[in-house]
Amino acid sequence: MRLVAELLKITAGGRHIVILDDETAGVLGVHSSDRVRVAFEEKEVIALANIATNFPKNRIGLYAEISGMLQIKGGELVDVQLAKMPESLSYVRGKIRGERLRQQDMITIVRDVVERHLSEVEIAAFLTALKIYGLTMGETEALSRAMYETGKTLDFGEAPILDKHSIGGLPGDKTSMLVVPIVAAAGLTIPKTSSRAVTSPAGTADRVETLCPVNLSIGEIREVVKKTNGCLVWGGALDLAPADDLFIQVEYPLGIDPLLLPSIMSKKKAIGATHVVIDIPTGSGAKIRTITEAHTLASDFVDLGKRLGMTIQCALTFGEQPLGHAIGPALEAREALTTLIGGGPQDLREKAIILAGILFEMVGLEDGRQRAENMLQSGKAERKLREIIEAQGGNPNVNPDDIAVGSQKVQVTSDRAGRVLWISTDSIVQIAREAGAPREKGSGVVLKAKLGEAVKKDGLLFEIYAERSSKLECALDLANGLKPVVLSKKAEEQMLLDQIPEKVASERPFILER
Amino acid sequence: MRLVAELLKITAGGRHIVILDDETAGVLGVHSSDRVRVAFEEKEVIALANIATNFPKNRIGLYAEISGMLQIKGGELVDVQLAKMPESLSYVRGKIRGERLRQQDMITIVRDVVERHLSEVEIAAFLTALKIYGLTMGETEALSRAMYETGKTLDFGEAPILDKHSIGGLPGDKTSMLVVPIVAAAGLTIPKTSSRAVTSPAGTADRVETLCPVNLSIGEIREVVKKTNGCLVWGGALDLAPADDLFIQVEYPLGIDPLLLPSIMSKKKAIGATHVVIDIPTGSGAKIRTITEAHTLASDFVDLGKRLGMTIQCALTFGEQPLGHAIGPALEAREALTTLIGGGPQDLREKAIILAGILFEMVGLEDGRQRAENMLQSGKAERKLREIIEAQGGNPNVNPDDIAVGSQKVQVTSDRAGRVLWISTDSIVQIAREAGAPREKGSGVVLKAKLGEAVKKDGLLFEIYAERSSKLECALDLANGLKPVVLSKKAEEQMLLDQIPEKVASERPFILER
Repeated sequence: MRLVAELLKITAGGRHIVILDDETAGVLGVHSSDRVRVAFEEKEVIALANIATNFPKNRIGLYAEISGMLQIKGGELVDVQLAKMPESLSYVRGKIRGERLRQQDMITIVRDVVERHLSEVEIAAFLTALKIYGLTMGETEALSRAMYETGKTLDFGEAPILDKHSIGGLPGDKTSMLVVPIVAAAGLTIPKTSSRAVTSPAGTADRVETLCPVNLSIGEIREVVKKTNGCLVWGGALDLAPADDLFIQVEYPLGIDPLLLPSIMSKKKAIGATHVVIDIPTGSGAKIRTITEAHTLASDFVDLGKRLGMTIQCALTFGEQPLGHAIGPALEAREALTTLIGGGPQDLREKAIILAGILFEMVGLEDGRQRAENMLQSGKAERKLREIIEAQGGNPNVNPDDIAVGSQKVQVTSDRAGRVLWISTDSIVQIAREAGAPREKGSGVVLKAKLGEAVKKDGLLFEIYAERSSKLECALDLANGLKPVVLSKKAEEQMLLDQIPEKVASERPFILER
Repeated sequence: MRLVAELLKITAGGRHIVILDDETAGVLGVHSSDRVRVAFEEKEVIALANIATNFPKNRIGLYAEISGMLQIKGGELVDVQLAKMPESLSYVRGKIRGERLRQQDMITIVRDVVERHLSEVEIAAFLTALKIYGLTMGETEALSRAMYETGKTLDFGEAPILDKHSIGGLPGDKTSMLVVPIVAAAGLTIPKTSSRAVTSPAGTADRVETLCPVNLSIGEIREVVKKTNGCLVWGGALDLAPADDLFIQVEYPLGIDPLLLPSIMSKKKAIGATHVVIDIPTGSGAKIRTITEAHTLASDFVDLGKRLGMTIQCALTFGEQPLGHAIGPALEAREALTTLIGGGPQDLREKAIILAGILFEMVGLEDGRQRAENMLQSGKAERKLREIIEAQGGNPNVNPDDIAVGSQKVQVTSDRAGRVLWISTDSIVQIAREAGAPREKGSGVVLKAKLGEAVKKDGLLFEIYAERSSKLECALDLANGLKPVVLSKKAEEQMLLDQIPEKVASERPFILER
């Protein structure tokens, strides 16, 4: 059927969508969510049909994605036909019914996700089914392969290529900013790509961006790694495992994360990593709450690594409280730089040394821990970070105090004396975000007392930083309500953990960082 | 944050969506799929945010739904804030985790579906989780209540109010066109609302529309029922259980139907039915394939009826082949009218008598079957249908031959002699749809040989009707490929049921009619 093309002149966020009025759709036999094949001259695309009641008859509304692909200016006659259901949709339906999918089925699904042949409704159903049924290791492997094969891959030359990844969830975890220069200073290659915060106050890319640009092209990354052995860049625009961005868009509102393993491992494979240490922060403040859970996940990572031809070691790390003191992009960059220079919190320093040490031993170097410590103490790691900052286009002579933090600041003190019994990381995250993090990079929280430390009455618990006074006030109100730092005085005062029924918003925050 | 409103001048198919560019969204702390609260003067709405990369900064793009609600003409400054996640979304997430939902939770979800506060992604995840976990009877009841309480309800006065419903899936099932006049002719009230075909060649509303208008308002329906005790109208535009339309939009691409029970029963409750006979066609040609499955479903219907205050009886009916001979809106209307007049196929006549008889006995009338037969034989049922046709605005004196069927016709004959061993209803459906049904009302298939009947070589198997020769050709090609009528000759020739691997499109057709 020939229809007149009408340009809508807006994008559909990458989706392939056209609009038909309901009568025209009826004549074509097209229902909402059916696909149509739209052909113009030699070009044709498959798009999802949205049916509208007030759209003109015998016309087809083209969002910018479709008109761009067909090179249509508006007013042309295009040929429109009902298209068949994509093969991948029958596999999605199979997964909803609980069927096992083969590698080829997964590849078909992932390719259709990337090529926008599957709608978000269909992707949502697929991910929900994966979440409920769980994935076999075979399916996880197939998905991982499909995800990196449908994107770009990098090749930094000879092995070993090292990498470090945290499954996330622990606020203040700026360890990558130390591990990368420690490893690179030892002459090993570690091309680290990181994410930006989605639900947290800071991702590594957000932190590093207060020191130098992180939005580098693949060519620029290659140059930086050639010069310095390492990099600290944002991985989001490199088209590595691009299906993951589309999966995340759907997972985010649903609060599910069934693709943790393939998502992480496909990206490691895409940058050509051969040896990866995976940090699994474990404890009440992290994504993984129990040691048992962490062990299961760790052995899955190791197994998947073998299947994909990568050597993996996992480190289960203490996750009962934020790492270091600072939470928020600039505050954390300050803390990381300070720690490289020689000060800084002991837990951060220790964690960086451990993870770098594991990497050293994975590639056959002895005394990994000692070697990592030497890189730190000798100042080699600091100099390496400055090299990387310079290579990425930042100021290599930056001092911690040069990193701008929020000009608005408030101190939160204790109304009693005691020792810190627990710190709610969820609440710290909320307060830092309310203060403006990660968008307003100088915002965040600095803890002044950590687990087990003694605090006097009216003693300092934490500081909130913000770039705007209005945000500071909101964050302070929230802090006063949430009381994230709990002191012990008498044990019996602390017996009540929670009270039910309570206010509705008791759902545990969903952490989606990878 | 104040943004300039930009009118997109197209609807989003009822969805509540606004567009923000990614920088503006970042400043607001809004991610794709987050909600924003948009306020203008005294009015405010919650809408889902779509993030675009090429949209102008500091502007908000409003689809027609939102600009209409806010009465915005374009260019006004509106206040935009990140809105909280709706409470219903935390119940959706709970269901994904396998939690049991309480009545109040279900009501909250259904209300947010109707008010468009939940996105299709979220509805898809909810329905997928319901499909996989199944619903408890308590959840089914809660959903049913929520679905009719969020829509319009009708009141036809004193009980009993009778109704008949088929769960669908059997082509050629025009039984309602006989049951309604039989029951109404006996002085009982039966306000029948029906659906149009979605995936089948004809719904009851499509069939009746070849005789009279079916798109009546609630006021008009009331008049028709007052005059004639019955009606045969389209239920789709009456706003009965409106959530169901939105659920169906999502279920259709996914090929799932987890809400069969609440969908049907909420609509029965909404029209005030007190006594309902539910037809469950059972067999290889129907939606329900086995007697065991049908029994489980039947007892769920009865149980749910009790919970909702309705008396339900289920009839498991023969579903191994199409009902009667005709498939397609006009062809079926002809057959139904012929059967009321006194001819017509025996299976259709028998089924109508049985279902009407059950309804009679449900309201305390004795000898239901005999009573139904009398209504048919005395011509009272025929006269009643003509009354209803007239009351709905059609020609009461219509004869079967007056009903226009496709002018294009082809006969399909047998290449061998034998008895009909099986008829693939799925294939018959595909052929009738390829011929133009349900959109082109005169199109369809007329079976000339049914199960067990003897056919000579070159004897007639079925006829295809179409309104256009091009469609007739396509349908004939399909028929020659599918060979929907299988004759026995020697048993060994028929041993092969299917061959695997075969072509990809082997997925069983999904039936969504309710």
